[in-house]
Amino acid sequence: METSKRRRSNTRARLLEGAVEVFAERGFHGASVEDICERAGFTRGAFYSNFASKDELVLALFQATTDRLLEQIEALLPELATQPGTLLDAVLGLLDETAPDERQWHLISTEFTLHALRDPEAARALNQQRAMFRDSLTKLVEQIVETSGLTLSVPAERFVRLVIALHEGARSQSLLEPRELPPGELERTFLPMVLEAVSRPSR
Amino acid sequence: METSKRRRSNTRARLLEGAVEVFAERGFHGASVEDICERAGFTRGAFYSNFASKDELVLALFQATTDRLLEQIEALLPELATQPGTLLDAVLGLLDETAPDERQWHLISTEFTLHALRDPEAARALNQQRAMFRDSLTKLVEQIVETSGLTLSVPAERFVRLVIALHEGARSQSLLEPRELPPGELERTFLPMVLEAVSRPSR
Repeated sequence: METSKRRRSNTRARLLEGAVEVFAERGFHGASVEDICERAGFTRGAFYSNFASKDELVLALFQATTDRLLEQIEALLPELATQPGTLLDAVLGLLDETAPDERQWHLISTEFTLHALRDPEAARALNQQRAMFRDSLTKLVEQIVETSGLTLSVPAERFVRLVIALHEGARSQSLLEPRELPPGELERTFLPMVLEAVSRPSR
Repeated sequence: METSKRRRSNTRARLLEGAVEVFAERGFHGASVEDICERAGFTRGAFYSNFASKDELVLALFQATTDRLLEQIEALLPELATQPGTLLDAVLGLLDETAPDERQWHLISTEFTLHALRDPEAARALNQQRAMFRDSLTKLVEQIVETSGLTLSVPAERFVRLVIALHEGARSQSLLEPRELPPGELERTFLPMVLEAVSRPSR
């Protein structure tokens, strides 16, 4: 028999899925809590027993997406310890695969970022979430760099910020012109050059 | 006496200025043609004799911004011919200065890009505008590279796409966390490394 806890987690997951679809169609501001409930097949009561607000739901989406990405990178670590050269390939491959629908995810995350630029409370919550993700990625990069017997000439945190900035900017271009710029092409072309430029053997 | 043409161009400029303010406050979707007219002190008639739609007005803003940037870069060319090493400094300096209010410009251009991802007609117009800008920048990069006696190992167009992607992604991070990431820092740190990695002496 399904426990109450599992039922709750299932409700939450279905609300998140419904929200992704509704946000992608109507935008963050255009989608109401009612729209999300209708899509997921739940009442407003079910929504508010899981999320305090639409903002909180989007932040939970960010959390789920970044958790999944970090888990996938961590799963690669043992392999990377023996073949450090594949780090960038592995990470770049993950970036492509992580969001099953890059377009939907780009719309939602960009819209919420714009919302945060006008709403200090949303900005605080988003920045906290992004900082946690960056910190986790930074620790992974430091760990991999050390395992590979390398030292970086820039803080690992700056390299992580570069990867995120380039990926987000390139994704926008690829979504606008998929034929002119295949997804991941700028990252695959330029990130290895940067990594080469900033790494030196430790000893 | 002011000619009709000059009066028209003045009306257009004031509508554009008003629109920048209203879009930044209320967003592209939240701002109506009425809001823009009220802010600029004109009637709807004046608006529609200058722009067919809100979309057309935003595209005119893109055009004005990119024209200004290209003019500034072209003005630097004579200096660059004698001191090619300063190319990147000059371009990066311009990126900082170009949009007098980076925040407003980021909000408007990002919102219109999201709109274009949902509206094929807006996408066509935006892509055409962005392609013209990229082409102009690409020609400038090719010209500067040649003047400097260098050859690029990647197409100049790809390097231009990288600069735009990194700048747009980094701007989003700097606007969210200005103290953690000063504007332009990622570009100044990493673009010189990439330029170094892709350029070789021609002969």
